[in-house]
Amino acid sequence: MSARANMPLAGVVVLDFGQVYQGPYATLLMATAGADVIKIEPPNGEPLRRRAPRGKSTTFPIAMLNSNKRAITLNLKAERGKQLLFRMAAKADVLLENFAPGVMDRLGVGFDVLHEINPRLVYASGTGYGLSGPDRDNLAMDLTIQAVSGLISVTGEADRPPLKSGPAVVDFLSGIHLYAATVTALYERSVTGVGRKVEVAMQEAAYPTLTSQLEAYWRSGQVPPRTGNASHNRVPINVYVAKDGYVAMNLAVEEHWHNLLAAMGREDIRDDPRFCTPDARVANRALVDGTIEAWTRTLPKLEIFAIAKQRRIPLAPVRDVGEVMRDAHMHERGFLEDIVHDEIGQITVPTSALRFHGSDRRPTTPSPKLGQHNEEVYCGWLGLSTAELIELKKESII
Amino acid sequence: MSARANMPLAGVVVLDFGQVYQGPYATLLMATAGADVIKIEPPNGEPLRRRAPRGKSTTFPIAMLNSNKRAITLNLKAERGKQLLFRMAAKADVLLENFAPGVMDRLGVGFDVLHEINPRLVYASGTGYGLSGPDRDNLAMDLTIQAVSGLISVTGEADRPPLKSGPAVVDFLSGIHLYAATVTALYERSVTGVGRKVEVAMQEAAYPTLTSQLEAYWRSGQVPPRTGNASHNRVPINVYVAKDGYVAMNLAVEEHWHNLLAAMGREDIRDDPRFCTPDARVANRALVDGTIEAWTRTLPKLEIFAIAKQRRIPLAPVRDVGEVMRDAHMHERGFLEDIVHDEIGQITVPTSALRFHGSDRRPTTPSPKLGQHNEEVYCGWLGLSTAELIELKKESII
Repeated sequence: MSARANMPLAGVVVLDFGQVYQGPYATLLMATAGADVIKIEPPNGEPLRRRAPRGKSTTFPIAMLNSNKRAITLNLKAERGKQLLFRMAAKADVLLENFAPGVMDRLGVGFDVLHEINPRLVYASGTGYGLSGPDRDNLAMDLTIQAVSGLISVTGEADRPPLKSGPAVVDFLSGIHLYAATVTALYERSVTGVGRKVEVAMQEAAYPTLTSQLEAYWRSGQVPPRTGNASHNRVPINVYVAKDGYVAMNLAVEEHWHNLLAAMGREDIRDDPRFCTPDARVANRALVDGTIEAWTRTLPKLEIFAIAKQRRIPLAPVRDVGEVMRDAHMHERGFLEDIVHDEIGQITVPTSALRFHGSDRRPTTPSPKLGQHNEEVYCGWLGLSTAELIELKKESII
Repeated sequence: MSARANMPLAGVVVLDFGQVYQGPYATLLMATAGADVIKIEPPNGEPLRRRAPRGKSTTFPIAMLNSNKRAITLNLKAERGKQLLFRMAAKADVLLENFAPGVMDRLGVGFDVLHEINPRLVYASGTGYGLSGPDRDNLAMDLTIQAVSGLISVTGEADRPPLKSGPAVVDFLSGIHLYAATVTALYERSVTGVGRKVEVAMQEAAYPTLTSQLEAYWRSGQVPPRTGNASHNRVPINVYVAKDGYVAMNLAVEEHWHNLLAAMGREDIRDDPRFCTPDARVANRALVDGTIEAWTRTLPKLEIFAIAKQRRIPLAPVRDVGEVMRDAHMHERGFLEDIVHDEIGQITVPTSALRFHGSDRRPTTPSPKLGQHNEEVYCGWLGLSTAELIELKKESII
């Protein structure tokens, strides 16, 4: 215990078969919280490495989602590869994977086998539709799960086709759920001594985000129309044109409305029956939005943001990804860091949205290259000889 | 130990000051995993109760996000209310809140005070911008954080204004991050014996979802244009018109493309130079999408879904919220349940997207009414007398 680092997951060893976004995001947060995450890839690398520059194995998403991990290669289709996994599983705390349902079982390295070897191992599976049920084997991507789970149907303008959320919201929602399920099982193990299989389906992780629309459907029996940036039952909630872009405003209580009127210099309409109650503003939606936009159009978005901050109005500028990546606030908080990756140069990476006050901060080690830690892990941790390592390489086991 | 339920968070007591979506979602998952969640509200209820039918305290979102909790009332602004909280904090494992930064400190019931009383207590704070940094005190809602964190800028069509994601993706992303941070600290406490303050900022929880767009920006130095439902560098990825709605398709590898050609009966174009490589399809985007839509337009979306399933094509129907709520697969898996709430009648509620194999399933108890468990918690758990309870009620402390 004496050598334990002052980080929440210090001492936890994770065998990470995560690929693309969902799995790697879950294990990024584990690594940043102090776990020893060993990223295990097939000898040709996980899919996200495919677009790396010639002779290199790093892409921007690899660098963004794999800091603080070690990387090894392993061919799970070879018998000797499986034996290596069994030896690692015996020493690990967590195995996490987001393969299609049944892949690990078919390879002979599923939960049941590993649980025999190490009953303390927590086994975490992330899939599109889950490990059971009639839709289990449907192929899943962020976009298709956005479709099937209803997210696309509620995004967009009423008189135009439905739209996806631009960001990969389902991949990341399910990735953080997978983290949550895994750590919950680690907590439970601290009480029971036994690890469990845990699973997260992307479809189920997405469902609760529709709470407002499900409510509207339940109330009326009608599928609510898309509303663009507006709300069907509250005004003003919208995105407004500014002099140089857009601002988003979401007034929740009457005090916010009064603060806005003061900011706009329009306290003259405070008692106007077309504006003075929430219901009146819904009934006069176009007039209210037009009145606001007549003001926002005259000012740059950051100036409006500053006024809103001072006046206590829930408003923010619509920022592009460049502005977000350079955000002074997130850099000052240490959430965003500018680092140099020796394969792809200077990049901005996130640390972790999970913040543990009083914990030591794990210094960011850039994402590993494919197989970078084969020797360190297989020889240093697992106890293989250098001769064995060379042989494994020659036989394409690693 | 003998009486411990076979559920991961059995025995964990949570003081839940969560409100609206973010906090209550985090504690819903704790409750479903076996924790004893005590929802603590001001005597007039949390904001989500405001639109309840006259004389009742339940709304659809309250019912959807508060199953398996107990509910009590507490006026934290009264000195006696604070004393009650101190007594509860001494016996609890977790306190979770999503008030604005500094609210609990100003009331004199912040982490530092509670940590003195109970060093094992994990204190979890969810906010829009975090507990530090220049933007800390900005007012935050799901919509404004979607704006400031870049999500709105990348959603929508290239030649039209930016659009929000229809679902409350940021509230729920940050809610599950808050769950994750809390349980991580519980795990750590099993090693160290000490609880921490943990925090999650909505803005930071949203950032990683932009990985693809951040990559495009980093590669080119240009803010990538919005792409509607398409991808800027892969074809076919899009939403297509079906006979009775839409389907979303995301072909990741050449095998998927060949499967699609077979399904469409268009293997005649497999070797056509305009179609036969990923780059060729990007160069002939309109032709490719038009060829696909000529097929999808002739069939109902569920028929296309069935074909895609059989042919191994990553595709799904764009479903509306009614279809999603009645989804046979999620009902069969036990993720969705039809229950009767005695205040608002029959509703469909989610259980938990965190699934623990081998754990007992917590039977769903419908969401509590405002203050429903005041006597049970204050007298039964905390040890107050009935006379004290009556007095507290009379003095509007509870």
